[in-house]
Amino acid sequence: MNKWYEKAGPQADVVCSTRVRLARNLQAYPFPSKASQKEKEELEAKIKDALLSGNSVLSREFSFLPLESLTREAAISLAERRLVSPEFLSQEKGRGILLSEDESVSIMINEEDHLRLQVLMEGLSLKEAAEKADRVETVLSETLPFAYDQEFGYLTECPTNLGTGMRASVMLHLPALTENGGMARISANLSKLGLTLRGTYGEGTQVQGNLYQLSNQITLGLSEDEAVENLYAISNQLIGEERKLRERFGESIQLQDKVCRAAGVLKSAQLLSAGEFMQLISLVRFGLSTGILKGLSWEEVNSLTVAVQPATLMARQGKAMEQEERDRSRAQLVRQACGALKEE
Amino acid sequence: MNKWYEKAGPQADVVCSTRVRLARNLQAYPFPSKASQKEKEELEAKIKDALLSGNSVLSREFSFLPLESLTREAAISLAERRLVSPEFLSQEKGRGILLSEDESVSIMINEEDHLRLQVLMEGLSLKEAAEKADRVETVLSETLPFAYDQEFGYLTECPTNLGTGMRASVMLHLPALTENGGMARISANLSKLGLTLRGTYGEGTQVQGNLYQLSNQITLGLSEDEAVENLYAISNQLIGEERKLRERFGESIQLQDKVCRAAGVLKSAQLLSAGEFMQLISLVRFGLSTGILKGLSWEEVNSLTVAVQPATLMARQGKAMEQEERDRSRAQLVRQACGALKEE
Repeated sequence: MNKWYEKAGPQADVVCSTRVRLARNLQAYPFPSKASQKEKEELEAKIKDALLSGNSVLSREFSFLPLESLTREAAISLAERRLVSPEFLSQEKGRGILLSEDESVSIMINEEDHLRLQVLMEGLSLKEAAEKADRVETVLSETLPFAYDQEFGYLTECPTNLGTGMRASVMLHLPALTENGGMARISANLSKLGLTLRGTYGEGTQVQGNLYQLSNQITLGLSEDEAVENLYAISNQLIGEERKLRERFGESIQLQDKVCRAAGVLKSAQLLSAGEFMQLISLVRFGLSTGILKGLSWEEVNSLTVAVQPATLMARQGKAMEQEERDRSRAQLVRQACGALKEE
Repeated sequence: MNKWYEKAGPQADVVCSTRVRLARNLQAYPFPSKASQKEKEELEAKIKDALLSGNSVLSREFSFLPLESLTREAAISLAERRLVSPEFLSQEKGRGILLSEDESVSIMINEEDHLRLQVLMEGLSLKEAAEKADRVETVLSETLPFAYDQEFGYLTECPTNLGTGMRASVMLHLPALTENGGMARISANLSKLGLTLRGTYGEGTQVQGNLYQLSNQITLGLSEDEAVENLYAISNQLIGEERKLRERFGESIQLQDKVCRAAGVLKSAQLLSAGEFMQLISLVRFGLSTGILKGLSWEEVNSLTVAVQPATLMARQGKAMEQEERDRSRAQLVRQACGALKEE
């Protein structure tokens, strides 16, 4: 069964993925930062049970991974695949994750909140992801008494999540808008619209390979549907701008040269860092979308982008590797995957 | 008929070509710098006649090119192919060139001396080139009275050419010795041995793509044979050192990476300057000689290196081109030529 990140969805030329996450907490328990070890273990058992018990309609789709059972590489690979937040890994005790078979649904237990349920889907799939998140949340709510306030909505550790507890985001590939120097202006405008543009791996992270996370800021005083609608409309606007600019830039021999060289390097390098890969694959994505290149599908690009991340690479090889060994292993994987890539 | 620079000769992995040139002047005429236009024209007619008249055994092999009959591109291309010196082109009046069909023998008329006869051959072919030069010189001397002094030998405008009037040189590709940082030491040692190491296009020019011209300095008090023997012995020593180092460097994954990337860029670039080509083809030469790469013969490398030089490129296309158009045309030519290049 293909994982969500091995697929390509709607608007795959610009939108790599969609994410919807819900923050929930159980009544009668302190937030994880204040809970005792015993309380956290109780919480973990209750949440696990709510999904995996025989009564749950979802019981066969999910499995439970206690963080402490994982190797360091396997754990970090979860963050690289966006299944958990990087912070979730930093303090592993009493933390676990419920994961659906295609890895499109993951539930972090005892992260900042008791539950962080997230749905990840390929391409621009906001409505589908929100619906899926709600379906899973409904199943959980049948047995778990979520902390809810008439005025503040779902109660969360951080006040910025109060209300719907929902954060929706789309991962946008915006090489042309970036090249055009327009991202600062766009980011400022988006803030005014209640949206925020972040780095590739979320808050406080750098933009890698022109991949930006666009997400809703406001969770209070706005319904889930309204937030999703808003994000969807603005995503489509950015997609339109990006495509128009790509068409223009695609005519430039200088950019064609950069794109073809990027493909040439991916097909031939013997050592390749993750950072350089992200820069080069960004050019290749641009080349595929403008018809400069062919021979690689969006599915292949998406799969490869996940597979070459450092910990995922090591987890796949089943061993820890020093940087040079990783760069070598990554280069080999990339050469194989990009063999069919060529000029249109 | 293939030109000399489209072939590969002995020790082709290190030695691109060999050059032997003889400087000669006719009795009873001032050196070109002091000759009148009429005298230069007389000299040209005499020299031309000596080779092209029906009596000459070489008459069918040579043709005469008056410089003023050539386009700017065709003229500069002669220098790029090393058939004339760059200085020869700078003042075109009364100058001409006698050229053999395979371009291995060229005679500049009215350069610094009345005649500059040079033989160019593929690979390390010092003895063969010297013999060939002597054969042509013998034919010329049958009708041309060369200025010769018992004490000073052949008389030349510049005293550094007095004696044999011969300069022999080999074009060496020394990427490993360069990488190893040993070239300054080697160059100093060679001076002591009466040899000199110069840039790719001779005196006062830069080293391009790790190509060095090694030539004899001394023409007086040493026979032609001795000078050639000396250069031959030292060339072989350098070849040995270079090969030993290449074997060592060839093991390095960092160098393998550089080499394979260079091949990747040559196979994919849409814009390519002559300078970048020289850098990249140097890595490819290194890769071919160490077994990192295969699929391109030394003949192909040598032909391509000449074909992509700016004026030669334009002469081939039959038109002057701006830099971007040249870089584009060069990239296309290189992509075609390097298509079969791949990892061993």
